[in-house]
Amino acid sequence: MSQRWEGVFAALTTPFAGEEISVEKFRGNIERYNRTGLAGYVVLGSTGEAVFLGDDEAERLVAAAKASASLDKILIVGAAHESARKTVELANRLAGLGADAVLVKPPHYYKSRMTAEALRQFYFRVADECRVPVIIYNIPQNTGVPVEPPLVVELARHPNIAGIKDSSGVLANLAEARPQAKADFRFFIGTGSILLPGLLLGASGGILAMASTVPELCARLYSLFREGKLTEAQKLQLDLVPLNKALTQTMGIPAVKYALDLLGYSGGLPRSPLLPLGDADKATIRDLLRRLNLLTA
Amino acid sequence: MSQRWEGVFAALTTPFAGEEISVEKFRGNIERYNRTGLAGYVVLGSTGEAVFLGDDEAERLVAAAKASASLDKILIVGAAHESARKTVELANRLAGLGADAVLVKPPHYYKSRMTAEALRQFYFRVADECRVPVIIYNIPQNTGVPVEPPLVVELARHPNIAGIKDSSGVLANLAEARPQAKADFRFFIGTGSILLPGLLLGASGGILAMASTVPELCARLYSLFREGKLTEAQKLQLDLVPLNKALTQTMGIPAVKYALDLLGYSGGLPRSPLLPLGDADKATIRDLLRRLNLLTA
Amino acid sequence: MSQRWEGVFAALTTPFAGEEISVEKFRGNIERYNRTGLAGYVVLGSTGEAVFLGDDEAERLVAAAKASASLDKILIVGAAHESARKTVELANRLAGLGADAVLVKPPHYYKSRMTAEALRQFYFRVADECRVPVIIYNIPQNTGVPVEPPLVVELARHPNIAGIKDSSGVLANLAEARPQAKADFRFFIGTGSILLPGLLLGASGGILAMASTVPELCARLYSLFREGKLTEAQKLQLDLVPLNKALTQTMGIPAVKYALDLLGYSGGLPRSPLLPLGDADKATIRDLLRRLNLLTA
Amino acid sequence: MSQRWEGVFAALTTPFAGEEISVEKFRGNIERYNRTGLAGYVVLGSTGEAVFLGDDEAERLVAAAKASASLDKILIVGAAHESARKTVELANRLAGLGADAVLVKPPHYYKSRMTAEALRQFYFRVADECRVPVIIYNIPQNTGVPVEPPLVVELARHPNIAGIKDSSGVLANLAEARPQAKADFRFFIGTGSILLPGLLLGASGGILAMASTVPELCARLYSLFREGKLTEAQKLQLDLVPLNKALTQTMGIPAVKYALDLLGYSGGLPRSPLLPLGDADKATIRDLLRRLNLLTA
Repeated sequence: MSQRWEGVFAALTTPFAGEEISVEKFRGNIERYNRTGLAGYVVLGSTGEAVFLGDDEAERLVAAAKASASLDKILIVGAAHESARKTVELANRLAGLGADAVLVKPPHYYKSRMTAEALRQFYFRVADECRVPVIIYNIPQNTGVPVEPPLVVELARHPNIAGIKDSSGVLANLAEARPQAKADFRFFIGTGSILLPGLLLGASGGILAMASTVPELCARLYSLFREGKLTEAQKLQLDLVPLNKALTQTMGIPAVKYALDLLGYSGGLPRSPLLPLGDADKATIRDLLRRLNLLTA
Repeated sequence: MSQRWEGVFAALTTPFAGEEISVEKFRGNIERYNRTGLAGYVVLGSTGEAVFLGDDEAERLVAAAKASASLDKILIVGAAHESARKTVELANRLAGLGADAVLVKPPHYYKSRMTAEALRQFYFRVADECRVPVIIYNIPQNTGVPVEPPLVVELARHPNIAGIKDSSGVLANLAEARPQAKADFRFFIGTGSILLPGLLLGASGGILAMASTVPELCARLYSLFREGKLTEAQKLQLDLVPLNKALTQTMGIPAVKYALDLLGYSGGLPRSPLLPLGDADKATIRDLLRRLNLLTA
Repeated sequence: MSQRWEGVFAALTTPFAGEEISVEKFRGNIERYNRTGLAGYVVLGSTGEAVFLGDDEAERLVAAAKASASLDKILIVGAAHESARKTVELANRLAGLGADAVLVKPPHYYKSRMTAEALRQFYFRVADECRVPVIIYNIPQNTGVPVEPPLVVELARHPNIAGIKDSSGVLANLAEARPQAKADFRFFIGTGSILLPGLLLGASGGILAMASTVPELCARLYSLFREGKLTEAQKLQLDLVPLNKALTQTMGIPAVKYALDLLGYSGGLPRSPLLPLGDADKATIRDLLRRLNLLTA
Repeated sequence: MSQRWEGVFAALTTPFAGEEISVEKFRGNIERYNRTGLAGYVVLGSTGEAVFLGDDEAERLVAAAKASASLDKILIVGAAHESARKTVELANRLAGLGADAVLVKPPHYYKSRMTAEALRQFYFRVADECRVPVIIYNIPQNTGVPVEPPLVVELARHPNIAGIKDSSGVLANLAEARPQAKADFRFFIGTGSILLPGLLLGASGGILAMASTVPELCARLYSLFREGKLTEAQKLQLDLVPLNKALTQTMGIPAVKYALDLLGYSGGLPRSPLLPLGDADKATIRDLLRRLNLLTA
């Protein structure tokens, strides 16, 4: 992958109008993100409620993202199904609509059968048949199936497996796999609270839900590290932790969307079964944004 | 639900010819099952590799099952998506093709958000909008999201929530919820090794992967219990345990399909990422069937 | 083991007077239990807060139990340490004080190292060196280290390993191991909600915390099963489930002790870090006992 | 705590001669560690097989450590029991023998009862009654009971709770709690693979099993960070990861002890139920040490 696959990527939400996806609001958000220091976008990720969307909705969102994203932004698209066959089908369809790479989480319904060998064959087949680079997506808190470092090292040898987004929070994974993987294999931190230490260990950047709400702060954290301003970077990293925890751990997507509403983006409500945010949680989010000087009132 | 919603249901596999589903083989299997003492069939369940299938494939299989199943057999169909909206859409489409009831597992991708309240609202909405009765599907080893007894009791109050298939192996769930649920709420045991003790505590029957390989033995176990022949029932139950463990715990779907091949049904291979059975496992399955006097050689 | 190792054993609590153990209250409880249909007692089990006690306290309790228990009651004593060496030392000391058998849970601090082989060697060494029979104690919800059925079958071959108390709630364990273990290997159900179905599959009885609060009801459940009165047994089993869940799952030891206070035994408070029961939980316990007609007010 | 509570502490092993502890070998190891850049030692930690030792053995080891440790080395001692009462007793006895602070893991046998409130009361009581500072020990992979950041922040307010050793591997814990805890609250990284990123986020140092085998490399990693030599530090950190993983994750204490034997310390065998290292694992350890240029052959 080229040098530019570095920096902070925002994991985008999917705005709805009533029960339907709103492509208009989605494009409005992206147009605003275009003016930030983000390296690119992830569409149809966990933050994007991809598991709630139909294939037609997925296609409309990717086409819209391609049309709206400025040319310098990279477009990564989630494309995961439980079977290799359907994953490849979807990935190639979305590649045809403009995805620069696809993010593929491991199959996980038949947990006890998802041995290292089963995952190896799955990822190799997907990578063989996929028209764009594949990025592994490790998020065991949602899948229950970790992609362990020794397997990552093996998968990294495939010419079409370009990187990994690791949302496990286990930084030792990166420390173990980084030195053994090819030099241009990309490690993206998926946990906003440990972006800085991840960069120190050799990560190329981050793919963060938090970056959809505070893109400039996340991009600045990345820049501070690259410029060697560690003290400032450390302070900013620690300042971002409470917001990140609320958005990704305590409250999740409904909170990301509520924060977007407060910050002038199109947030809105999630689809069922995700519940809307309660009043106490809303107050917490407002308070967290205020502490970052992002809300005036 | 009527009195006949009792007994043993086979969780059917999905046969493939090469990479495609084989409706012909599927119908062939059902025609043979029609001559057994099974109460009915579950199509598109965990055993059916439903998570690997497209919606079009799902529809063809349900239509074929409806066409092939004899009139006295009940047709339960798996219809689960992560969102309420898509679950209802699919369920009603499959109901239109002949499903007598739909089996709905809880949404589970956003595990930490799937509180009792979120699940309650999900199931109530699905039940409200679904044209056929809904059966809850508790299988925490695959979903990571248990449907706990107090919630089951609450859900059982909905007129269109007709029962539960519990594959957790935790018989205390049944013991807790059974007395508090409406009299005609159906508890189906999803673990072949504990069908008999489940019946003793008030289960209506079982929905079993094992029943697709040895339907007559499973049906006989049910009948022995109903006839009060407990000693014979206990012996048969214990005799079935090693096979059930291999089929559902140690080896899974590839073993169910291999056993079907040995027993004259159409088994075949699973879809990727499930791996084919190795030689040692095949020998174990042959041995287990021999001990049940189901193989002559 | 002789024929009499059957029936319901009460897992006894440890009464305190202030911060110290009260041998007097302990003996008072046992004297009352002597007049019930219990088969025997377990001292120093999970219910007995054994992990909070010093070795000197343990010895005093076992000596007191031996002195107080009537001759027809079997005395099983918990004797588990993380090392084989200390387990044997403690077990033999307690055997010298009158323990008829010792209950030994698997070492579990170094979870990832507790392979089947490590557990096998541990139990064989303990059984070799122990002067009284060893009963395996499977309680993975507390230890995080399950003793799986294939290992149980192997351990059952040792002449001094006499049985297992299984508190996992997974009745398939019993169904798998029972037919392969020696005929006089004892399976004791450790979950009060599934005693009856466990007996149906071949268990010899139960070792139950609930039996310390309602010994006669538990003993009657066992007798009803032995007498073939299944309908009555089923009703009683289901009636006991709510109490059992509160005592062992929702509230734990503080609730067992509070129930004892209500029922005329010496209950009292647990040691720190266990917290005393709150008022709402106390009301629930009173209500549960009333529903079983055990409280007049 | 004074300024000097910083740097790398070695989690010491316990050498045995046959079945007995060898105080002589233990002192020999410490005398050699005295000549390294370690900040101090942890005796009776997880690496020290503390759970296998009797109280008398614990006392002899602490006395020996006090006698052997040079005056500039800090002596932290593990002192954990399941009850507050016994924890305090042991802690104060070991403080009397020379422990500068005690390391206390949360009670964890009654997992479902170990709520934040129960842990809060436990730690506050222990800290109130303990004569030396208390360091919290978070090691959920062994205990199954995490001490979550909000509770850590609360506990840090107690004047006698001086710090935490976090072996969870979850660096977000540190990032969350560090800014909210008092300035001199010490965070020690317990995972050798993430010492450097932990320091970047504000950790005071590390308490590492690996540091008992390669004390100088661990101390150098700490120094490189303090001197701002990040590139060298990053390289050394990544170089240490494979050894750390083998010692603490894949193989555990038997591997730590075998490495010690190879490096001229007294290692030896662990107590049962820990199994001796197999030949293949031994070869791996030799290879890992060779790659770090620590073995000549």
